[in-house]
Amino acid sequence: MAAAARLAARARPGSAPNPGVAALLVRGGTIIARGWTQAGGRPHAEAIVFDNLDGTAKGAALYVTLEPCAHTSERGPACADIITAARPARVVIGQHDPDPRTAGQGIARLKRAGIETTLLDDPASARSLAGYMSVRRFGRPYVTLKLAMSLDGCIALADRSSQWITGEDARAHVHAERARNDAILVGGGTWRDDKPRLDVRLPGLEHRSPRRVLLSRRVPPDNVTVINRPNQVSTLDGVQYLYVEGGGETAASFLRDDLIDELHIYRAPIIIGDGLRGIGALGLNDLAAAHGRWTLAQSRRLGSDEFTAYLRTRN
Amino acid sequence: MAAAARLAARARPGSAPNPGVAALLVRGGTIIARGWTQAGGRPHAEAIVFDNLDGTAKGAALYVTLEPCAHTSERGPACADIITAARPARVVIGQHDPDPRTAGQGIARLKRAGIETTLLDDPASARSLAGYMSVRRFGRPYVTLKLAMSLDGCIALADRSSQWITGEDARAHVHAERARNDAILVGGGTWRDDKPRLDVRLPGLEHRSPRRVLLSRRVPPDNVTVINRPNQVSTLDGVQYLYVEGGGETAASFLRDDLIDELHIYRAPIIIGDGLRGIGALGLNDLAAAHGRWTLAQSRRLGSDEFTAYLRTRN
Ligand SMILES: NC(=O)c1ccc[n+]([C@@H]2O[C@H](COP(=O)([O-])OP(=O)(O)OC[C@H]3O[C@@H](n4cnc5c(N)ncnc54)[C@H](OP(=O)(O)O)[C@@H]3O)[C@@H](O)[C@H]2O)c1
Ligand SMILES: NC(=O)c1ccc[n+]([C@@H]2O[C@H](COP(=O)([O-])OP(=O)(O)OC[C@H]3O[C@@H](n4cnc5c(N)ncnc54)[C@H](OP(=O)(O)O)[C@@H]3O)[C@@H](O)[C@H]2O)c1
Repeated sequence: MAAAARLAARARPGSAPNPGVAALLVRGGTIIARGWTQAGGRPHAEAIVFDNLDGTAKGAALYVTLEPCAHTSERGPACADIITAARPARVVIGQHDPDPRTAGQGIARLKRAGIETTLLDDPASARSLAGYMSVRRFGRPYVTLKLAMSLDGCIALADRSSQWITGEDARAHVHAERARNDAILVGGGTWRDDKPRLDVRLPGLEHRSPRRVLLSRRVPPDNVTVINRPNQVSTLDGVQYLYVEGGGETAASFLRDDLIDELHIYRAPIIIGDGLRGIGALGLNDLAAAHGRWTLAQSRRLGSDEFTAYLRTRN
Repeated sequence: MAAAARLAARARPGSAPNPGVAALLVRGGTIIARGWTQAGGRPHAEAIVFDNLDGTAKGAALYVTLEPCAHTSERGPACADIITAARPARVVIGQHDPDPRTAGQGIARLKRAGIETTLLDDPASARSLAGYMSVRRFGRPYVTLKLAMSLDGCIALADRSSQWITGEDARAHVHAERARNDAILVGGGTWRDDKPRLDVRLPGLEHRSPRRVLLSRRVPPDNVTVINRPNQVSTLDGVQYLYVEGGGETAASFLRDDLIDELHIYRAPIIIGDGLRGIGALGLNDLAAAHGRWTLAQSRRLGSDEFTAYLRTRN
């Protein structure tokens, strides 16, 4: 299941409006076929896995991160039917699909066809489906806030200069993260100050440059989608993963509305003092209330910088 | 040599005015005796190691973090003479002693006595002698700045409440660090706001509570040493290691004068936004000038917090 969840990273970005699912067919401890959701959301992972299979699925186990769909569309048959036709010995499912057209009916159909089917509540599968689940549950994309800061939490000098806080390795990491998101957002201040290109400048990934979104109350420039309140991220069609790159006021606006699911902090070994803060005013007046919201998920060095990821604790 | 340097940590704090030295006597790969500078600076590590030796030093190698002293005092004979009398086969020295009464004469005396003597420039020994070396070289203690901060660099809410930012494990770590320092300093603001006890509240280490120092321009309270400028740390007799616990203005004052040798950051997984900054105004107007000053030395988790240590890069 963990291997399938890792494989699902290949479905990012671009599976929207469909979930980025991955499937593995295993026999006797060996993976005999793999598949993941293709760009645009079709074909589904299950269709790909059986296409890739050389021979029969008999006696094999299918691991799939999300419940196979139960609905036929003009773009392809229901995955539950594809699986039933291929007849693996058993199906292990990472997460239940909240889509009302499936929601348990995919599993029911497999069981009716006599295929042994197990539904897990697998955290790695859940994480790999975060964008899809966020759209289903909250009606908005999964939002990552990126901050490139000094040790003391500044993202620029007082005169607004911010090139460069972090080093090359950290900046390359940011470009790779951009390529994993469907859209990038910055605030009006950053847009005007930095005139950021917000593209992916990594060899071979240039075509992965995501859609650009601006948070602003002003008349929008061309070639960019504008929202004028953070919660309008819910109107961004086809966006399951949104990457917010600042600045400080924008970060604070999103945090005040509890719209940040993941924090990515790139911390350079420098001290700025009275610079621009990475996070603007939140109006917090109780320290206890700030606790319990974030969990350290990952920490690593990138050159002389440190990268740390935190996940919003939600129940 | 590395083992001797680690052992030297036991001489902290309290070896002042003498260096906190450690010595190991090794024969055939086995440590046969150990010693380190005792509180108050005497006896020296070399005297202890031969006191602790059961039998003869013949054929053994003595590893000592600092050049053995060449001067007799009323508190004991010169270490070079103690070693010569014990006649180990060889002496390996981690660092040269800049004290003019020794400065090469300890080594010369050992060589004259026919003992094979090697002087290294061992970084671990240098680190273990940081306080002594700082007093010798800069005429002031080795200064560690501690900051307990939110992810965005705040040490308190805007209303100045700061209990608690970090968790229990981080606070216990701070108490252990206090016990490793000869003195603790806070600024007048923190003194008045927090009325901090600045003692060591760890079982068995209570007696290690260091001397308390206040940075203030006002009339001093009782029971505390006051300095009215950061560079007056040079007047603190008997202090090789100073621990600065903030607040933000004090931290900035020390940083502006380049008086911080080590940074200890305890980072809690909370976001504060418009709180009190950990570091006040530095007047930095060139981002490039902020780089190259700090090197990440250690990073570890303490409960849900992260501890990171940085060393000032000096040449
Ligand atoms: N190191 C880094 O990671 C990093 C990243 C980004 C930016 N920066 C630096 O940060 C600085 C800009 O930061 P900043 O805080 O001044 O600006 P910002 O957050 O980029 O932009 C502020 C603007 O965003 C819009 N906005 C914010 N909250 C809003 C809300 N709730 N509803 C509608 N619109 C909202 C408004 O745009 P309008 O005025 O257009 O209405 C507002 O003026 C730049 O100097 C940049 O270099 C650094
Ligand atoms: N989380 C943490 O790690 C942590 C640690 C410490 C403090 N804090 C919080 O920080 C807040 C206090 O911070 P702060 O920045 O307001 O105060 P601060 O740095 O503790 O104290 C400022 C005062 O220090 C003295 N001072 C500073 N620079 C000086 C200089 N160059 N020469 C002479 N004296 C100097 C002055 O004292 P006089 O006014 O007496 O002359 C000045 O008013 C408190 O709310 C406390 O809770 C948090």
